[in-house]
Amino acid sequence: VSGVGGRDGAAAKAAILTEALPYIARWQDRIVVVKYGGNALAGAGAGAGAGEAAQRAALVTFASDVVLMRSVGMRPVVVHGGGPQIGALLARLGMETAFVGGLRVTDAETLDVVRMVLLGQVNPDLVGAINVHGPLAIGLSGADSRLLTTRCADPALGFVGDVESVNPTVLHRLLEQRLIPVVATIGADETGQPHNVNADTAAAAVAEALQASKLIYLTDVEGLRRDVNDPASLVSTLDADELGELLSTGAVTAGMIPKVTGCLRAVRGGVGQAHILDGRVPHALLLEIFTDEGVGTMITLA
Amino acid sequence: VSGVGGRDGAAAKAAILTEALPYIARWQDRIVVVKYGGNALAGAGAGAGAGEAAQRAALVTFASDVVLMRSVGMRPVVVHGGGPQIGALLARLGMETAFVGGLRVTDAETLDVVRMVLLGQVNPDLVGAINVHGPLAIGLSGADSRLLTTRCADPALGFVGDVESVNPTVLHRLLEQRLIPVVATIGADETGQPHNVNADTAAAAVAEALQASKLIYLTDVEGLRRDVNDPASLVSTLDADELGELLSTGAVTAGMIPKVTGCLRAVRGGVGQAHILDGRVPHALLLEIFTDEGVGTMITLA
Amino acid sequence: VSGVGGRDGAAAKAAILTEALPYIARWQDRIVVVKYGGNALAGAGAGAGAGEAAQRAALVTFASDVVLMRSVGMRPVVVHGGGPQIGALLARLGMETAFVGGLRVTDAETLDVVRMVLLGQVNPDLVGAINVHGPLAIGLSGADSRLLTTRCADPALGFVGDVESVNPTVLHRLLEQRLIPVVATIGADETGQPHNVNADTAAAAVAEALQASKLIYLTDVEGLRRDVNDPASLVSTLDADELGELLSTGAVTAGMIPKVTGCLRAVRGGVGQAHILDGRVPHALLLEIFTDEGVGTMITLA
Amino acid sequence: VSGVGGRDGAAAKAAILTEALPYIARWQDRIVVVKYGGNALAGAGAGAGAGEAAQRAALVTFASDVVLMRSVGMRPVVVHGGGPQIGALLARLGMETAFVGGLRVTDAETLDVVRMVLLGQVNPDLVGAINVHGPLAIGLSGADSRLLTTRCADPALGFVGDVESVNPTVLHRLLEQRLIPVVATIGADETGQPHNVNADTAAAAVAEALQASKLIYLTDVEGLRRDVNDPASLVSTLDADELGELLSTGAVTAGMIPKVTGCLRAVRGGVGQAHILDGRVPHALLLEIFTDEGVGTMITLA
Amino acid sequence: VSGVGGRDGAAAKAAILTEALPYIARWQDRIVVVKYGGNALAGAGAGAGAGEAAQRAALVTFASDVVLMRSVGMRPVVVHGGGPQIGALLARLGMETAFVGGLRVTDAETLDVVRMVLLGQVNPDLVGAINVHGPLAIGLSGADSRLLTTRCADPALGFVGDVESVNPTVLHRLLEQRLIPVVATIGADETGQPHNVNADTAAAAVAEALQASKLIYLTDVEGLRRDVNDPASLVSTLDADELGELLSTGAVTAGMIPKVTGCLRAVRGGVGQAHILDGRVPHALLLEIFTDEGVGTMITLA
Amino acid sequence: VSGVGGRDGAAAKAAILTEALPYIARWQDRIVVVKYGGNALAGAGAGAGAGEAAQRAALVTFASDVVLMRSVGMRPVVVHGGGPQIGALLARLGMETAFVGGLRVTDAETLDVVRMVLLGQVNPDLVGAINVHGPLAIGLSGADSRLLTTRCADPALGFVGDVESVNPTVLHRLLEQRLIPVVATIGADETGQPHNVNADTAAAAVAEALQASKLIYLTDVEGLRRDVNDPASLVSTLDADELGELLSTGAVTAGMIPKVTGCLRAVRGGVGQAHILDGRVPHALLLEIFTDEGVGTMITLA
Repeated sequence: VSGVGGRDGAAAKAAILTEALPYIARWQDRIVVVKYGGNALAGAGAGAGAGEAAQRAALVTFASDVVLMRSVGMRPVVVHGGGPQIGALLARLGMETAFVGGLRVTDAETLDVVRMVLLGQVNPDLVGAINVHGPLAIGLSGADSRLLTTRCADPALGFVGDVESVNPTVLHRLLEQRLIPVVATIGADETGQPHNVNADTAAAAVAEALQASKLIYLTDVEGLRRDVNDPASLVSTLDADELGELLSTGAVTAGMIPKVTGCLRAVRGGVGQAHILDGRVPHALLLEIFTDEGVGTMITLA
Repeated sequence: VSGVGGRDGAAAKAAILTEALPYIARWQDRIVVVKYGGNALAGAGAGAGAGEAAQRAALVTFASDVVLMRSVGMRPVVVHGGGPQIGALLARLGMETAFVGGLRVTDAETLDVVRMVLLGQVNPDLVGAINVHGPLAIGLSGADSRLLTTRCADPALGFVGDVESVNPTVLHRLLEQRLIPVVATIGADETGQPHNVNADTAAAAVAEALQASKLIYLTDVEGLRRDVNDPASLVSTLDADELGELLSTGAVTAGMIPKVTGCLRAVRGGVGQAHILDGRVPHALLLEIFTDEGVGTMITLA
Repeated sequence: VSGVGGRDGAAAKAAILTEALPYIARWQDRIVVVKYGGNALAGAGAGAGAGEAAQRAALVTFASDVVLMRSVGMRPVVVHGGGPQIGALLARLGMETAFVGGLRVTDAETLDVVRMVLLGQVNPDLVGAINVHGPLAIGLSGADSRLLTTRCADPALGFVGDVESVNPTVLHRLLEQRLIPVVATIGADETGQPHNVNADTAAAAVAEALQASKLIYLTDVEGLRRDVNDPASLVSTLDADELGELLSTGAVTAGMIPKVTGCLRAVRGGVGQAHILDGRVPHALLLEIFTDEGVGTMITLA
Repeated sequence: VSGVGGRDGAAAKAAILTEALPYIARWQDRIVVVKYGGNALAGAGAGAGAGEAAQRAALVTFASDVVLMRSVGMRPVVVHGGGPQIGALLARLGMETAFVGGLRVTDAETLDVVRMVLLGQVNPDLVGAINVHGPLAIGLSGADSRLLTTRCADPALGFVGDVESVNPTVLHRLLEQRLIPVVATIGADETGQPHNVNADTAAAAVAEALQASKLIYLTDVEGLRRDVNDPASLVSTLDADELGELLSTGAVTAGMIPKVTGCLRAVRGGVGQAHILDGRVPHALLLEIFTDEGVGTMITLA
Repeated sequence: VSGVGGRDGAAAKAAILTEALPYIARWQDRIVVVKYGGNALAGAGAGAGAGEAAQRAALVTFASDVVLMRSVGMRPVVVHGGGPQIGALLARLGMETAFVGGLRVTDAETLDVVRMVLLGQVNPDLVGAINVHGPLAIGLSGADSRLLTTRCADPALGFVGDVESVNPTVLHRLLEQRLIPVVATIGADETGQPHNVNADTAAAAVAEALQASKLIYLTDVEGLRRDVNDPASLVSTLDADELGELLSTGAVTAGMIPKVTGCLRAVRGGVGQAHILDGRVPHALLLEIFTDEGVGTMITLA
Repeated sequence: VSGVGGRDGAAAKAAILTEALPYIARWQDRIVVVKYGGNALAGAGAGAGAGEAAQRAALVTFASDVVLMRSVGMRPVVVHGGGPQIGALLARLGMETAFVGGLRVTDAETLDVVRMVLLGQVNPDLVGAINVHGPLAIGLSGADSRLLTTRCADPALGFVGDVESVNPTVLHRLLEQRLIPVVATIGADETGQPHNVNADTAAAAVAEALQASKLIYLTDVEGLRRDVNDPASLVSTLDADELGELLSTGAVTAGMIPKVTGCLRAVRGGVGQAHILDGRVPHALLLEIFTDEGVGTMITLA
């Protein structure tokens, strides 16, 4: 559009503005929890060598979108994990990890690695990318101010935790100061023992505890399909009951299950809308929030 | 753009959003005084018969733009006169009015007509057009809470007043309540005697008293030209000194002089930017405020 | 008394002060809605020629009383119509108006005249008379901030509206700023269509919505009589049920019916006291509010 | 006036109200320090036997006036001594006291008596008379919250103190809660040693520290005279310099000197007006404050 | 301990600090009502001549403890009577008083003496001892701001009152300003008639009305005993029911009955803990509040 | 002491309480920055094998002291580095690091390790130890909300930063919420590039920016000595000028220089007192803050 001069360009811009402005008004002061996934945002079709640069570019765009959301009055909260980066450090340290039922057993040493990667690498990288724009973001672990209290998920898995309760007070205070919390999903149980927590699940728990207006999963898929093999069956909107059915039919792939479950939990717990977005579309966040045009699947209560 | 599907449309929208969002953040909570001119907004090229409908359509668009400005956090104040409508009622009442130096002499009877038109017709029409969107606008005369204190401009002109002082308190209070004040430029002197005040001048005085961020004149010209006869000499931006010079060279047409003088007064008095916009461009207000693309002439201090 | 010097004068003054001060304390911060009627305040017994001057004098006294009420901490709200003035402008414009059941049919042209008179003449005259004392009053129409939402009263009557709901927010805000709202009873329906509203009825609706402590009708009669033909049957105080009975016996003259109905509605809706005062008694407002001596009829719930 | 029925009575009342209301507005929220003197308020011309009843009646009227002042928004502070009552208890206890330069020497035993009378008798009597009207008054000694810090006035006089500093904080807090402080003029020096303080002087110090709007001495004289022997030389108003001169000419009687000095100190220290009122006139306080008619002498700065 | 140098002294101090600090945190902002008894604090074993000095020393220590309590964030309220001092003044004045059922009949003259002693002697002495440390304390009688409303306890006893209601507002306001109220237990009935009130009973009523966290009676006994003759039967803690039983068995001496009854009333009315402390132990208040070690008997609800 | 029963134990406790309580009052709401050093707190005389347990015990005691400080109203801020732990991970990863002038060169890979250790290990360990007591602590890096803006200290050292500015806003907000910030000294320059910052220096910069009342370095020495070889020359108190001299005479060991320099900067920049404490003394923090007895060296401005 920017290449189109004169009246027509102006009319096009005016049309988009009159479309976007009501959304801006609508989402003013609203809390939006965004789950940022490690591998979700790698550039589409990028070759092996281009991977890191593409990921860096995606991070820069993501940070800039989050800053724009805040600048027009929204209250974004970023939640993240870091699976690939954890795998890389474990490999580098020559640590082998056992698997139980497809899940990695997290012993004390592995937990140390998980904490170092999430708190000492992924979290500060996200905070840093945002803070290029100003003193805006603040990193948090789930142990800070007892944000995430956990319990052992399964003794066989070691220090893996389920979220037992969320203490949203500190997030509310930070949001009131117009700060952007960036949460690494390490929690701690009542005794102070740290636990690794699934980031998709934690994001839903945080969104519910904050009574957020939106929960957004940024993924590397286009959205949910009714028939997992049929691209044409992409679903734009569905309600909680329909999503429950879809889940029971096996149409949801393994990797999507925690996200789908998180969406269900969130909307049933009071979050207005949950989204599974295609993070590969540049500025997917902005398009989803500020235009009529969805870029993925939206789940509502009914 | 709305006709363009898929990725390209999305990219175009994302580009316009990333252009607009920083402006929205920038103008958050800022006061913008908009002078709405009676004849300025008639549809370009509209025939005689189509005049009223076009004017009504322009009013509807204007009201909707002002509501959008407010909805994203700005604090618009509307100032208006009503020359053509006053002429119409005088004619209908068969009242002849004398002219001195090109200006209409306003005797007591004429003043009654001016008050009835501005306060009983133009002002409630503007308020009504805005309030279709909700309980947003409130009409004011310059005599309300002594908003505009005037003194007699020239005894030969009768009850025509110059603005002596502005009491912005009531406007600030209404703006804090997120209301949109719509001001008819009838003032009163210290004794309570009402005066008719030039609306262009009053708009500048109000903008200065409010220390507004912007003063915008909606007109029926494209903007200022360096050479009044050369459309190619349209000026996009100029500073107060340049504008002072332009004024002294006679390049400003008579009808534009109060607006140009108002711009000068405003930016020299602390208003960030003054604009002479082409009100015939649909949504000129939005394009000016929220995009890189100007639709008229912007005056700054330096 | 002022002519009485020395001790006796002092004792008389002291007696009146000790009578008045508790009322002042009692009405501190309380909202009082005063319906000011066009013809109610014309000087008693004034000849034809003296009419306008007497009316002007009555307006000046009324404005000064309202300012005194505010100065000792009360929160007056003025509501007004303007029947006689509307008739005068219609006549001057040579507009004939039909009547249905004794009520004037208000077509679009008549409505224009009503708006011009109420908003452009009576309202600013009242505001101006008050603001001689300072930046105290602010004029409002029922369309401002959707103060009075109306519905068509009867299609046969044209643009005459019944009050459907009152939005008292803007009045509360103005009262908190110690401003005196002066309300012209033009409302608007949901579509924004303006309606002419009976001022007596509107005053009662406003008093109820504000949960005012008092509603006062300034009239040109001494008060209500049990027997309309017997001056000795003047009633000083009566309760809602007694008033209902009086209304059903036909003892209330046609012109008083909207006022009596308004009193009933107000006290039944939570307004503490409603009054029908003799506006011809100078400073009737002050005498009613601050002394033991009533100057008309007071209606309470029970 | 109350005996005068109909229109004339109403007009008289209205005249007094329009006179009083602006004063009420003017003194809203203003602090007025009233020095209440033991013997000042005894009924004029009352015989020996009638003394106590008259004094009690005067106390009741005084308390009611103070409550009325508060009820219309003023902030009265009462300061008192109790010379006659102290003398009575000393006599009853058979304690003889020496005099130095006409002033009573206050040894430790005498101080005990002074404290018991002021704090245990006069102060609670005043508080009690006011609190018949509600939970309004609170008694204070100058030692409470170190309200009056004193230093020894003259070793020869024993425990008699001059006011060194006033800590008005506690008075301001009590006034904000709409309470009426009643202050007995017992102070304490830095070591906590209590001192008897002249109540006229203390009242002026308190008024200055509070930056009161008025300081009022209730006395048993009509006011100040230019010629002490000429009743016709009564002065209604004079400024600080004139008062200074009067003082130097010896026209002020001994008993009035602390009051006159207090008036000078107060108006030179920022108190708006100081008054020497004739406390024998019933409701002298109300007449002074709320009417044009003075009942004594008013001192202003210039 | 202070004599022990080096590491061991440090370890001992550290141990006491870690014991005390949690109590300090726990009692932060909490209200504690302390009943200070006339004869309770005389130095243990002091001879006749030493009595006054010892009493003065006890007062100084008590005042300093109360100031320390306040300085670490508690909100102490002191309530006192003054039996011995009243007896002394009555004797000095040669006034004989009758007794009914062991209680002194309080006629008008006796009441005057009681007021003079409590308000003019004991209360200012307590306030003075505290205010040596700064402008901290403020003396109050139960008549101030109608703190204690009473009714006649028994016509045969004269002006002796039972507490009918407590108006804690003024105490709350003073506590919010970090002041220490010192309350003399003179109340007044609805007509303003003063009454003498038992100080133990009044202290309990005040503690209940304030919903204090603690009520503490400072006495001259070690605490309550199960067997009044057996020092070894001293009780450290007991609940309301146990205390009720103890009372019914006659194990409570006459002088302790009002205190025990006060404890019962307080804990049953919402006060967290009531204490009967041995005021002869220096700093008994501090030891009770800030250490694990009790110095008397604590009563809780259950 | 706890073993000493009866009166003597009580007297000893009372003595320590009356010593400690004024300090508690004095430090109420005051900010204290505590630098916690990795090796400073290892148990004195602990053997090799006992090292980790002793360090853990020291951490537990430290955390409990910090919680007690907060519980009595202080506002502690913890700043930490983690030299030994960084060395350990570098060794484990087989990374060799070059040294320039005795300082470790921090290349990009080393910086990654530093971040992982400080943010992913030491910081969450401190936060966890505190949060055993409740949701009290929150971990921060210097990049959060741009707390520490740095510039490259020396290109030869790589990513080592000097503190250029401190943004204390987020700390103030967290302290207002009664949270305990735990700061890892990783900063970032204007471009967002992270830098490793000396923790002693950063603690001083933070204390100055917060205008803390105290800066405390917990070390493993007894304090400063005038003669580094003479234990008897231990200094208890000295002012900034004396400390400057001491520094210039070479009496300060290399390891203490950043702490001594930090103390100087802090007290010269407005911090009330700076301390070099012997962290090996159990509860050194409490003893220093709440008793007369120092456990190290205190530096004041003069």
